[in-house]
Amino acid sequence: MTINIILFNSSLELTKNLGSKKLQHPVFVNDSKRRKNRKAGELLLDISIHYSGMSPDDRTNRGRPDIIHQIMLQYHFSLFNSEAFRKNTSFNPLRLFIHTNQDLVFEVSPEWRVPVSYIRFRGLMEKLLLEGSIEQPPVKVRNLSIEQLLKDKIKPESIILWTEIGEKKFSNELENEKDYLSTDKETVWLIGGYQSGDTPKRIESLVDKKLQIANFSLPSWKVLGNLLAYLEQDL
Amino acid sequence: MTINIILFNSSLELTKNLGSKKLQHPVFVNDSKRRKNRKAGELLLDISIHYSGMSPDDRTNRGRPDIIHQIMLQYHFSLFNSEAFRKNTSFNPLRLFIHTNQDLVFEVSPEWRVPVSYIRFRGLMEKLLLEGSIEQPPVKVRNLSIEQLLKDKIKPESIILWTEIGEKKFSNELENEKDYLSTDKETVWLIGGYQSGDTPKRIESLVDKKLQIANFSLPSWKVLGNLLAYLEQDL
Repeated sequence: MTINIILFNSSLELTKNLGSKKLQHPVFVNDSKRRKNRKAGELLLDISIHYSGMSPDDRTNRGRPDIIHQIMLQYHFSLFNSEAFRKNTSFNPLRLFIHTNQDLVFEVSPEWRVPVSYIRFRGLMEKLLLEGSIEQPPVKVRNLSIEQLLKDKIKPESIILWTEIGEKKFSNELENEKDYLSTDKETVWLIGGYQSGDTPKRIESLVDKKLQIANFSLPSWKVLGNLLAYLEQDL
Repeated sequence: MTINIILFNSSLELTKNLGSKKLQHPVFVNDSKRRKNRKAGELLLDISIHYSGMSPDDRTNRGRPDIIHQIMLQYHFSLFNSEAFRKNTSFNPLRLFIHTNQDLVFEVSPEWRVPVSYIRFRGLMEKLLLEGSIEQPPVKVRNLSIEQLLKDKIKPESIILWTEIGEKKFSNELENEKDYLSTDKETVWLIGGYQSGDTPKRIESLVDKKLQIANFSLPSWKVLGNLLAYLEQDL
């Protein structure tokens, strides 16, 4: 019945994960003051703001909440989530799960009016990570590995990984995937939520097919945006 | 040779355009302090930050620089602007012009590495509007109306307005538009850069065709994103 999109290993976390010693760096102290004295450990880690306080290792794949923001906007504004489409259908053809590099998972419901402003998004994510939930719409953060999310929650028939090293021809495959929009079977699309680097072997071992949009690296939101556009072409 | 995308009447401006009286509102004074004492009139007007200091009239269609940011990211990350595509072609199939509600125009070149972070984008746009130019890559802001941009600079064969009240079937039209990627003729795609409302009659009178992606309002970046995805499908 559904294409389940999972953004995996995304870097959405609070600054406290860096450890209290690093938080003494002026970049966190100053940002904390600028943010109306929000505690230095309770800021959303963002490499574009906190670069100088992050170690070279941290900088490779941490602090990119903008990726999650863009993915949530792509999902929110999909034609499948429009009022016009939803009033004529009884089911939800697309679901979106955000999985983080700390094995936290939350679902983005079609009702969630994702803030278009990054500054508002940041405040909302800080609240979600600090409190573990949002009331309106109900969003709850759970501790789940990708394996648990797949096996215990979604139980898909098929798992596709979208990656630059995947097979080139996706048009036929996408036609097959459209069947999931009208049957009661579940398919999963895995998209990496991190800045760069290979897909972890652990994830690769879970998938049935690897497909590409292009044979070079693209932002996660560009991959999802094009895939949604292709699905929407028939609407 | 080129599809010229114009985001028209977009709301990219400095807070000084509101007039000195409004700038005494605490929201501008506080934001100025938070921004390392950047002057209250030299901030990028952003409704998600400055809402309380804006009049109801200002709020309808001003202070949405996030729209311009998203459009520039869509363009920057188009497969047509990828290194892989560009090393095999001698021409630039897509150009992007940002036109503002103050009749300022600048071109976004494929070389421009648009910051993915909104916070960095904001600083860059403040510099561009204050100084009228950026050195690397060379970007220059000009005073041009839409009419001047079309007649004096681009001189297109055809002008399409993408609007929810346009004709529904765009697939055939898009096939025709692809011809512009391989001939020496110029076509223009107009996309509204404002939050909501009808296309001004002045703009409507300039266009040859009105086409729609959907018969309801969509964010400008979603319109451009889907159109680019459809063009990229054959690459």
